Amino acid sequence: MAESIKRPGLDYIFHPGSTAVVGAIPDSLSRFKLGNQFVRILLDHGYKDPLYAVGSGEGEVCGLKLYQSIGDIPGKVDYVITAIPNQFVPKLVEDCGKKGVKVMHLFVSGFGEIEDKAGLELQSEILRNARKYGIRIIGPNCMGIYCPESNLAFGMGFSKVSGRVGYLAQSGGQCILGIKEANRRGIDFSKVVSYGNASDINECDLIEYFTEDPGTDIITAYIEGTNHGPRLLRALKEAVARKPVIVFKCADTGGGSQAAVSHTSAIAGSSLTWDALLRQAGAIRVYSVQEMFDVVTVLQRCPEVTGLRTLVVGHGGGSCVQASDDCCRAGLSMPMLPPVLRQALMKVYRTDAGNIFKNPLDINPYWGMDKAREALSAVAGWQGIDLILLHSTPEQDPFVPRDFQYKIHTETLIEWARLSPKPVVLAMTTNTAPGDDGLPEKSFNQMQKEGFAVFPSVGRASTALFRVYNYYQRSRRGTRISA
Amino acid sequence: MAESIKRPGLDYIFHPGSTAVVGAIPDSLSRFKLGNQFVRILLDHGYKDPLYAVGSGEGEVCGLKLYQSIGDIPGKVDYVITAIPNQFVPKLVEDCGKKGVKVMHLFVSGFGEIEDKAGLELQSEILRNARKYGIRIIGPNCMGIYCPESNLAFGMGFSKVSGRVGYLAQSGGQCILGIKEANRRGIDFSKVVSYGNASDINECDLIEYFTEDPGTDIITAYIEGTNHGPRLLRALKEAVARKPVIVFKCADTGGGSQAAVSHTSAIAGSSLTWDALLRQAGAIRVYSVQEMFDVVTVLQRCPEVTGLRTLVVGHGGGSCVQASDDCCRAGLSMPMLPPVLRQALMKVYRTDAGNIFKNPLDINPYWGMDKAREALSAVAGWQGIDLILLHSTPEQDPFVPRDFQYKIHTETLIEWARLSPKPVVLAMTTNTAPGDDGLPEKSFNQMQKEGFAVFPSVGRASTALFRVYNYYQRSRRGTRISA
Repeated sequence: MAESIKRPGLDYIFHPGSTAVVGAIPDSLSRFKLGNQFVRILLDHGYKDPLYAVGSGEGEVCGLKLYQSIGDIPGKVDYVITAIPNQFVPKLVEDCGKKGVKVMHLFVSGFGEIEDKAGLELQSEILRNARKYGIRIIGPNCMGIYCPESNLAFGMGFSKVSGRVGYLAQSGGQCILGIKEANRRGIDFSKVVSYGNASDINECDLIEYFTEDPGTDIITAYIEGTNHGPRLLRALKEAVARKPVIVFKCADTGGGSQAAVSHTSAIAGSSLTWDALLRQAGAIRVYSVQEMFDVVTVLQRCPEVTGLRTLVVGHGGGSCVQASDDCCRAGLSMPMLPPVLRQALMKVYRTDAGNIFKNPLDINPYWGMDKAREALSAVAGWQGIDLILLHSTPEQDPFVPRDFQYKIHTETLIEWARLSPKPVVLAMTTNTAPGDDGLPEKSFNQMQKEGFAVFPSVGRASTALFRVYNYYQRSRRGTRISA
Repeated sequence: MAESIKRPGLDYIFHPGSTAVVGAIPDSLSRFKLGNQFVRILLDHGYKDPLYAVGSGEGEVCGLKLYQSIGDIPGKVDYVITAIPNQFVPKLVEDCGKKGVKVMHLFVSGFGEIEDKAGLELQSEILRNARKYGIRIIGPNCMGIYCPESNLAFGMGFSKVSGRVGYLAQSGGQCILGIKEANRRGIDFSKVVSYGNASDINECDLIEYFTEDPGTDIITAYIEGTNHGPRLLRALKEAVARKPVIVFKCADTGGGSQAAVSHTSAIAGSSLTWDALLRQAGAIRVYSVQEMFDVVTVLQRCPEVTGLRTLVVGHGGGSCVQASDDCCRAGLSMPMLPPVLRQALMKVYRTDAGNIFKNPLDINPYWGMDKAREALSAVAGWQGIDLILLHSTPEQDPFVPRDFQYKIHTETLIEWARLSPKPVVLAMTTNTAPGDDGLPEKSFNQMQKEGFAVFPSVGRASTALFRVYNYYQRSRRGTRISA
């Protein structure tokens, strides 16, 4: 990115000039110590700036010299990843302060989130000292920063490609699951922060940052609770005015709140309060990371959704009935195909026996790709619709081998999708335990690589479309979100 | 099955002494003609009674002589599978009548479900003639009968094992999808009927049959509409008094109803009417075939569900928070773990940092199987709960290779499940496109082979438990459903 673009205040935490990982031991003793693993992940991810390993014992970590303390490192250190027991953290903060460290990520747990009062006191002490030295704290009890642009990462196999989605997550696990979910669906990130207990850098800071960040087009968030209600509402409102914000607010029930307070010390707040807050802010609320990236998929892979009138096209009577139900139940509407278009379809197939030419359309892909193409061409331009939803359930076919089912259905959906002048989504439904031959995943990936918005069910596709439509209605923004 | 067990009236349709498939051509011309495929499927499925192929041309079909007409067959014919264009069906009915055929399955479409009035008239004519000869009609516009006991089948790869679940489905595709969904989840069928337009044998006949059938413990149904409201209500009530009935009523919305009338000529009826009908009958309502067999899974693989107080056990803070939300949202409750049990867990792990010991329990499977086992043993006998829900999200772990993640999580869930003296369900959550290495499916199958009730999400598991609990409450039956 050109230096001339104005970067928001917190930007430096994503671009440290040098990084130290504290909590390693010589690889000769164990390569599985957490500190060693953080070092290995950074190197695997192509981290290019000076990187140091700190810990006890003499030796090397992934070919790097192991330093005994932060103070021993010859060069300057901007960013410190901390993977040591919590009682040693206060001393480390002192050392980091003297060394001029700017940001510390605290992986360790056992602070504000446990019931022992000492944990909360320890967290306060760390924070006090960090403030004295001007050090910003990420965590404790979290995974830290993933930023492809600066080669920072905290998990194996994360995409090395920079994208346009910002993600903040109070949970490390949900953060990792979200990254993997997104990456598999062709979605890349500008920056991701797993921020845990939010003792210093919190959800408000990060939303404000992503709002200003020119590298971020869409903000996604997993939040368990907040201590900053009014500021969060303000931050969300300002963010939504600039870009879509998708929030997976968890800890929404009695059981969830019990869990959250032990997980990240979050005060979950009542479900009603959060619902009101997210509605007032105009954020898109979802209920899983899968749903979160369903919404991103529509935002990135479809033109603006300007209406809900949907043409539903697929194969199989029962499958079409269910698709129509799932589509309507999610809030989309299905106007009846006008007689002139039904006649056009009758011309292609000579009969409507075994087909449905209304809305939905039931078109048999085994009757030839030419006819399938001709049929969709005849109706795709219809002015009465805003959206086209293509669906298939390959395993409903009785006479066809499994691999051929998937091949034909995948090719047909792709051909149809190419013909659509409207926003189009593709849904392929499979069984619960779809067999370990990987065929459904291969089909999914094949459709996705063509650039289409692909979903594992009509319900998920429709719900994502409905949410995105409402977002556009609220924000009255007409710009297409770039991938 | 011993001959002494009384079999209900319609039983003979599932045990024809001989079968003919009409609509074949010599294999030398094409093996893909539908009639040929029906013959091949029956032979593959081990059909043992006399089997005849009927069609035009001279030659063989799968080694069987091809007869020109039903009348040419030397022996008697009980059951006829019909795969010829609809205009030839009236003549065939005459031939069958003269031959003494008892049941005809009409695969073909183009009758009551198309808009051409001639289709409906054709259907009426066929029915009139069939009645004259005492022939029962299945369909038209359907797949017919699958009955492992008599080796009847209509799709490739169906299980050859007889089970205790009866399934009637108005849609052929949903029927096949349901059979595959069930088979992959270790569920086998007593009898399955895809009944299409229901011109003669209809949903009421089949529910009444399954109610009386000693081979059927659980009735499942995919229904788009009915022309027999009062009789259906009565049949469902009588069925529910004897065994659980699970209904996937489709064509529930405007779009769905538009589709259904073209699919099976079903008058869908209003969603409210159906909701009331199914409630009054005490049937379990579901919204997909996947959900249908979720419910069967709980019925077959868990002891009676006598309450909803649930202990939720898994790994990962965010994952536990979401699991708790999903569990509570589905209607289960999560009482707080009493202090004495929390102390017992503290003894096992020394600290609650990085764990949650409340309800949910967050227990790290990487800290050793012995500890994991000890921890669950300490709480599994707790009198304050009725259910145990075990969940995992393997891909949330940052430092562990994917295959090792799945291995550890799967082994841990199995070990924990073995320790449970209560009804226990297992939920493993994966990404939307979970990679084409088949690891999630392998884990799913491994847990399932141990006999446990396995689900792809906490929400699905919880919803199935809630539905089954309500069924037991209504029916006050205490008997365990055998697999």
